[in-house]
Amino acid sequence: MERIIRAPRGTTLSCKSWQTEAPMRMLMNNLDPEVARDPANLIVYGGTGRAARNWQCFDKIVETLKTLEMDETLLVQSGKPVAVFKTSEWAPRVLIANSNLVPKWANWEYFRELEERGLIMYGQMTAGSWIYIGTQGILQGTYETFYAVAKKYFGETLKGKWVLTAGLGEMGGAQPLAVTLNDGVVLAVEIDKRMIERRLNTGYLDTWTDNLDEALEMVQKAVKEERPLSVGLLANAAEVHPELVKRGIIPDIVTDQTAAHDPLTGYVPAGMSFDEALKLRKENPQKYLELVYESVVKHINAILEMQKQGAKVFEYGNNIRRLAYDHGVKDAFNIPGYVPEYIRDLFAEGKGPFRWAALSGNPEDIYKTDKKVLELFPYDDHLRKWIELAQKKVKWQGLPARICWLGQGERAEFGLAINEMVKKGELEAPIVIGRDHHDTGSVASPYRETEAMKDGSDAIADWPILNAMLNVASGATWVSFHHGGGVGIGYSLHAGMVIVADGTDLAHKKLERVLTNDVGLGVVRHADAGYEIAIETAKKHNLRMPMLD
Amino acid sequence: MERIIRAPRGTTLSCKSWQTEAPMRMLMNNLDPEVARDPANLIVYGGTGRAARNWQCFDKIVETLKTLEMDETLLVQSGKPVAVFKTSEWAPRVLIANSNLVPKWANWEYFRELEERGLIMYGQMTAGSWIYIGTQGILQGTYETFYAVAKKYFGETLKGKWVLTAGLGEMGGAQPLAVTLNDGVVLAVEIDKRMIERRLNTGYLDTWTDNLDEALEMVQKAVKEERPLSVGLLANAAEVHPELVKRGIIPDIVTDQTAAHDPLTGYVPAGMSFDEALKLRKENPQKYLELVYESVVKHINAILEMQKQGAKVFEYGNNIRRLAYDHGVKDAFNIPGYVPEYIRDLFAEGKGPFRWAALSGNPEDIYKTDKKVLELFPYDDHLRKWIELAQKKVKWQGLPARICWLGQGERAEFGLAINEMVKKGELEAPIVIGRDHHDTGSVASPYRETEAMKDGSDAIADWPILNAMLNVASGATWVSFHHGGGVGIGYSLHAGMVIVADGTDLAHKKLERVLTNDVGLGVVRHADAGYEIAIETAKKHNLRMPMLD
Ligand SMILES: NC(=O)c1ccc[n+]([C@@H]2O[C@H](COP(=O)([O-])OP(=O)(O)OC[C@H]3O[C@@H](n4cnc5c(N)ncnc54)[C@H](O)[C@@H]3O)[C@@H](O)[C@H]2O)c1
Ligand SMILES: NC(=O)c1ccc[n+]([C@@H]2O[C@H](COP(=O)([O-])OP(=O)(O)OC[C@H]3O[C@@H](n4cnc5c(N)ncnc54)[C@H](O)[C@@H]3O)[C@@H](O)[C@H]2O)c1
Repeated sequence: MERIIRAPRGTTLSCKSWQTEAPMRMLMNNLDPEVARDPANLIVYGGTGRAARNWQCFDKIVETLKTLEMDETLLVQSGKPVAVFKTSEWAPRVLIANSNLVPKWANWEYFRELEERGLIMYGQMTAGSWIYIGTQGILQGTYETFYAVAKKYFGETLKGKWVLTAGLGEMGGAQPLAVTLNDGVVLAVEIDKRMIERRLNTGYLDTWTDNLDEALEMVQKAVKEERPLSVGLLANAAEVHPELVKRGIIPDIVTDQTAAHDPLTGYVPAGMSFDEALKLRKENPQKYLELVYESVVKHINAILEMQKQGAKVFEYGNNIRRLAYDHGVKDAFNIPGYVPEYIRDLFAEGKGPFRWAALSGNPEDIYKTDKKVLELFPYDDHLRKWIELAQKKVKWQGLPARICWLGQGERAEFGLAINEMVKKGELEAPIVIGRDHHDTGSVASPYRETEAMKDGSDAIADWPILNAMLNVASGATWVSFHHGGGVGIGYSLHAGMVIVADGTDLAHKKLERVLTNDVGLGVVRHADAGYEIAIETAKKHNLRMPMLD
Repeated sequence: MERIIRAPRGTTLSCKSWQTEAPMRMLMNNLDPEVARDPANLIVYGGTGRAARNWQCFDKIVETLKTLEMDETLLVQSGKPVAVFKTSEWAPRVLIANSNLVPKWANWEYFRELEERGLIMYGQMTAGSWIYIGTQGILQGTYETFYAVAKKYFGETLKGKWVLTAGLGEMGGAQPLAVTLNDGVVLAVEIDKRMIERRLNTGYLDTWTDNLDEALEMVQKAVKEERPLSVGLLANAAEVHPELVKRGIIPDIVTDQTAAHDPLTGYVPAGMSFDEALKLRKENPQKYLELVYESVVKHINAILEMQKQGAKVFEYGNNIRRLAYDHGVKDAFNIPGYVPEYIRDLFAEGKGPFRWAALSGNPEDIYKTDKKVLELFPYDDHLRKWIELAQKKVKWQGLPARICWLGQGERAEFGLAINEMVKKGELEAPIVIGRDHHDTGSVASPYRETEAMKDGSDAIADWPILNAMLNVASGATWVSFHHGGGVGIGYSLHAGMVIVADGTDLAHKKLERVLTNDVGLGVVRHADAGYEIAIETAKKHNLRMPMLD
């Protein structure tokens, strides 16, 4: 019998305070069937990104949180609760380290070996750190990215343009809606029928077919009529993309969100159904991987050809360029990464995927905070457009939550306002505030967030470590440090933080520090690398950088 | 003109409190000519382990510490002071991350490239984290190790036995005295005359020669007379060792402390003087490296041959086995590492290189704490023997300091006793308490501290990250996280902590937590891996491990 996990709602505490109730509810929320990709196996999203190492560990984490005192800290090692120590009221209640390996051993093969022996867990970014909030989490980022593409190349709108992509998984599932929100048309190739159904059910995808001709007909009609439309195509990208090239059909924009960062569980080779793939993956992983490599080569060669014929192409952080490169596509890196192309300038101002969730489970709490954020930042039209669209189009998954990209200063201001609302009883219960690991100061990832840094510091990982330690020092409620994540083992290190706004004065102090420092370090990191926008932002917000004094 | 750095002594503060005075003095102390290997280049020990990235950064760190408030935290990225943030009284005053790289980029070549571009610094273990205390730091560990060898194979004494080793650098320089303290004879091969002189001057080495025959004569005479003796031989190990094999002269024990973990700057190839080596290293690093590889192969093959002929051999954490292995010596790993052979059981009880230094600069402060530690743990004969020997044989280098291996429970008890002494005015000034990164719970290093773990978790690096975060959460005064260290880039990750006992009540609370939790996590790490001694230690000290509840 399958266990169904769902976070408790309302104001009755299972734990001794909201400081521990919050991580408990958010851990459970990560495994809510509305939220998680494969809750039976504790998999939240992104290949095998898990919330806890196994069910026994999950139960022990919950049990421990229920008895944890306000000056105790639980330590979680790759999803296993290993110790409780007495710390202080200022300390985080939970410290998490997931998937970390000594560099020379940092490869998938070795990782999987350790995983099989029950010694390690893949934490992805927000899976093992308990702040994944469903596909909305990525929807805003994807919306921002397609908006940035539109801004750079198509006059701020995707009207009458079409996007080709693949992968409608937990992150990739945000693509169709993100494109239609920008008034464009999208053809999204996905090999797993359940994923297509999931997106249809949540309203992220408009329609689907398993017939390429039919799909193209729908797409071309919508493009002609300048009407937004998203079409799911049940097929394999490694077959569809080369076929389009053959037919001379070139999209305006091409990207990809198959989980290619994890070739064994995240990419399905051409020539087989999803179920056949599952079978072969188990029975003959070596053979499976060989077929994946062949397919990825075809897939990327097709994208490169589309690029040559004028399509705007970019890699969307799944490390598929590297995989293709390693298997012979020497010009795979002609495809630019999305961060240097579209996101770097936002990071330099401290903007990134800020998010919050209502521990009450009451959507009204989120609507009230939506109102508050628009009140606080009335000058931000783009923010207003997003919040309005999100209210209309985003269905709740698990605990109601909201995401938007706020920058230095704004995050702290808004966090304090939320705490004030909780204090005054305007909200039913406390709010947790966090962010993706994929943020301005929290990650070193040379093929994604730190690709092509101005000073060449792409691979320097001191920053995410400082970020984790600074968040512990500043009063975050839980802090995590992961290896791997979206780009896979060996390719990134990143830190996460979540903080509870429970309306207390202590929370006020902590929120002020955490929401200033966490993002402040991101601005500093970019200023240190020489980005003008960051240097200005640091000055404007009085961030103290001794070497610039 | 060369700058001479020396920590201020006495009780006049340059900073706003002892919490910031302490890191300032300890940073300066690391560069004291009595302490540092090459202070002009900010190199403290272990190849190129630095205290700050450059002089400009050093000055800015000092300047910033002088103005830092009790609720502010300075962030140091690879020896550069990058930011100051407002945190809290419970937070560390300094957070340090050195030499960290994303795993796929974690190799010497890439590191050196970044270093040349001024973007990164090699932090070693206690160099970049400001708690190196000269060769005494390693003397106790080396003494413990040779004692463990004696215990395992020679009836608790090295009387009438002889040790062959090489390298009299900052760490390796402790070997001669550690052997003679165990009543043995040692022949230490060293290619740099200045290093031999340094050891003679500090009384760590008894005598020297540049003539192999003369050296052997002295050694053989002392062995015969069962008289402790240390002989420095100005020569190259890659020449001496094979020559000994050729002559059929087999030592009782063989190890090595050339800085082979960093082949370009730490190992001198056969066939040239030290000065010639320096020149070639600069002019043709590629050629230099090729010669190093050839020499290391000869060096290790000689040790393997001695092992076959009955010598007890072990690698002493400089990764020389791996270097030899990579260049063709396929049985290099027949040489065991010293940790699984001799240190693991100590780690499992939480024992490790605990240390403290007198910020006053007054040796009396250390003698008083020596007395205190013996009073507190009267049952520990081995400890008594060490403290008495240290008082007799160890010359102060920089600020007076002491090291001894204390375990779970003992560290906190002693730390609190020190704080009480400061409070009562029994000591002239506060004491800093810290440890090497090379400790029970602070490091992942599959060729050294975590070699051959019982459960196969050698390469899992979640533990040092949890250790760093836990020390931040528990109230350490400064916390560091490094990559590289003794075994070099790619091979280890480790955390450090230092805490100031300034006699205040807040320090009391912090000391209790930090000195319990820091080592407690080490016991937990070993208990989690299945070591019985650790499980018993955890039970005895009521460490809470949820999965063992
Ligand atoms: N851009 C970002 O901000 C960002 C953030 C996080 C993760 N990612 C990366 O994006 C990728 C997707 O993440 P996810 O969470 O959606 O992964 P996922 O595992 O949930 O989904 C991947 C989907 O791709 C489908 N797929 C695999 N191979 C296919 C093929 N050949 N043709 C068609 N469909 C195929 C799978 O059936 C699955 O539904 C990952 O690599 C992830 O690491 C990007
Ligand atoms: N065992 C431990 O606890 C421990 C701790 C830290 C470091 N280490 C490792 O031990 C090694 C030594 O550390 P260190 O700080 O003394 O390094 P160091 O650089 O200060 O000294 C190395 C010495 O070896 C000499 N040398 C180099 N090649 C030689 C050769 N072929 N023949 C003779 N002499 C030669 C050099 O002249 C130098 O004096 C390092 O690899 C270090 O990482 C061990």
